[in-house]
Formats: sequence, C-alpha cells, structure tokens
Amino acid sequence: MRRRNVKHAHERILDASGLVILDPLSYKGKYQSLFGNTNPIHLEIGMGKGKFIIELARRNPNINYLGLEKYESVLIQACDKLKDENLPNLHFICFDANHLEDIFDEKEIDKLYLNFSDPWPKTRHAKRRLTSEMFLKKYQSIVKEDIEFKTDNKGLFEYSLISINNFKGVFLDLSVDLHSREEEIITTEYEDKFSQKGPIYFVKFKL
Amino acid sequence: MRRRNVKHAHERILDASGLVILDPLSYKGKYQSLFGNTNPIHLEIGMGKGKFIIELARRNPNINYLGLEKYESVLIQACDKLKDENLPNLHFICFDANHLEDIFDEKEIDKLYLNFSDPWPKTRHAKRRLTSEMFLKKYQSIVKEDIEFKTDNKGLFEYSLISINNFKGVFLDLSVDLHSREEEIITTEYEDKFSQKGPIYFVKFKL
Repeated sequence: MRRRNVKHAHERILDASGLVILDPLSYKGKYQSLFGNTNPIHLEIGMGKGKFIIELARRNPNINYLGLEKYESVLIQACDKLKDENLPNLHFICFDANHLEDIFDEKEIDKLYLNFSDPWPKTRHAKRRLTSEMFLKKYQSIVKEDIEFKTDNKGLFEYSLISINNFKGVFLDLSVDLHSREEEIITTEYEDKFSQKGPIYFVKFKL
Repeated sequence: MRRRNVKHAHERILDASGLVILDPLSYKGKYQSLFGNTNPIHLEIGMGKGKFIIELARRNPNINYLGLEKYESVLIQACDKLKDENLPNLHFICFDANHLEDIFDEKEIDKLYLNFSDPWPKTRHAKRRLTSEMFLKKYQSIVKEDIEFKTDNKGLFEYSLISINNFKGVFLDLSVDLHSREEEIITTEYEDKFSQKGPIYFVKFKL
C-alpha cells in the first residue's frame, strides 16, 4: 500500500487511545479483559485503512475484533473512519507482525484474516511474506481456529498454497476467483480497486 | 471431450495391436518387459487424441510412456497420428481408470499426468473426478514419484487442491496461470483450443 505522509500521525494516534491499544505488550493474554467479555477474538494482520475489519465489527457485535497495522500513517486513516461511531468490539494496534508472539498468548486469537499483504516478489525476500513458514509457525501458536487469506497477486497465492500445504496446514475452502461466487463479500479498500483488474484468490485453512 | 462416432473403431484398434496393448490385465507388473528396458514409465490417464503424450515420447526416448483412454473412438484418433511413425517407447491402453489397480502393480508407474479431465461439476458426481480421494488412493498405490495435473476448469482445480491437500499430498509446484510462465509447455489438443479463453491451472504433487 502506498503510504502518504500523514501529518502528526503519532500525536493523533495518542489522541485515539480509546480505540488504539497503545501498549499491546501489556495486553498479552489479557484481551478478553480489555473487551470485558468472553466472545471470540478475530485478528486482521495488515488491516490498512480498516474498511474490512470495521465492517465486520459493525455486523458482528458478538465477536471482538483486533486490527494490526504496522504504519501509524495508515492506521490513523482507519481511526478517522470511526470518529463519530463507537464500536466497543473493535480495537486497533500499531505493531510489527514479526513480533506477534510478544503481544498474543497461545491460542488467544480465534480467527485470523490476512488480506492483500505485501507480495515481496523477490525470492530473497520470501521469508517476509505473511505466509512464509516463519509466520505460519507464529500463527500456529496464537490462532485457535482458522485463517482466511485473500490476495490478487498470482505469485503470492501460488507461494502461499505451497507454503501452507508443505507446513501441513489443512485447506478448508479455496477459490481462484472469489468474486465470481454468489455470496456477499466484505471487501478491503484495495480489493474494491483491484478486483476489476483480475481475479481475487482466496484460501481458508487451519494449522 | 466430445466423442465422434468413429466407424469401425474397435476393428481398427485391433489392427493397431503393435501400438495398443489389447490385454492390459496380463501386463500387470510386466510393463518393463514389454518395453524391453528398465527406463522409468510415465502414464497419462485420459490421453484423449494423444498430442501431449506423443510429443513427450518423441522428445524423451529414454522414458517409456503409457497412454490410457477410456473410449476406443477417441483412442483411434491418437493411433492415426502415429501411422507413419514408430515410437518404441510409447503404448496406448483402452481401459477405465476406475480399475487401475487391475493393470498396474504397486509403484509400477514413475510419474502420472492428468490433463483436462472431466470436471464432473455436480456435487453428487464428485467421486468421479480424477482427483477424488478414491482415485488418489489408487495413485498412491501405483505411482512412485510425482503427479502433474492441468485443467482450465476453476471448480475442478479448487476441488482438486483441497482434495490433494486433505489427502496429505505434498505440493511441489503450482500455477494459477501456467501459460504465463516463460517456459515451453507441451500442450494437449484441448489446451491449444481453450488456453486463449482463460488461465490454465496446474499443480504438481506427491502422494
């Protein structure tokens, strides 16, 4: 995703402290107490401007949602969407997914979403892809149920299927053209823009 | 594949007895002696009019090829292609893949090709798809190395990836657009016709 230079992003995120978890390290194992209930917790890694997870949170008040985004300048745009809306079942975290295990306990997340993550097309960067063995190991530790992955990038999809399969992940559902399905699909900002240009690939799996 | 009513197909196949194995049941465990060498044996199930396997046999004299086709009226069209050509490393078999284990011994086949097999789109016919659990069990028994699968059918590809994965097959290679690769691809008749209309899907796996 192209990152704009958003003015005072850091200060503005501090202002949104009701919505953004500023000290996620101290919440490891304690997200249920943050939400004040025992509902399942669903996480999106790389939530970007938040359209997808905000829509899910609106529709499913009995599920708790956490959105992870690495860049403050992107996250603040998601915060802006919620200026006049209170969703007690949604919080954002500005954090690098490389250190997931520092902020989540074993099986603390019920379901994980990975949407249109960076394809890192060069072979020497393969480890950075969010479906590399290194990341699958992290998910295996923190995710209890399934993982849903969407991308428009052929190379990333092909790599991901092989990686998940070789890791002995179990495919539950799969599409090479998700938008051709006769069902309502909750989309990301990126997806709205690029789904006209080619197919959206999808896999749902369990580790 | 559309089957034409080919006149005297049966009689003509009897005439091609040097090329067509008329009594495959009696060759179970004995294909090496048929070829008269210990070269690896590669099998194509559903060879159709034979373009793919004939081209492989021409290019690789040190590999033995067996082409399986259910319908005599289709197989005879492959025989016609070899009227003026002698390929000692190629034989055809007219046989129903449902009874593979009756004509092949355990691990007698080194490599298997499945190209553009019938998608059997109705759920109640799923078992008939050549990548259903029932067929994967047969392949596991007779195939020593890997299996290559190509299709232009989205539904069949999606089903096949889930089926192979759930069977604990290991993906070795995968493409959601095989013809976009910068490599020479040996094609089937069907593939030449339909690869302009949409992507060709491909997976190579081991059971």
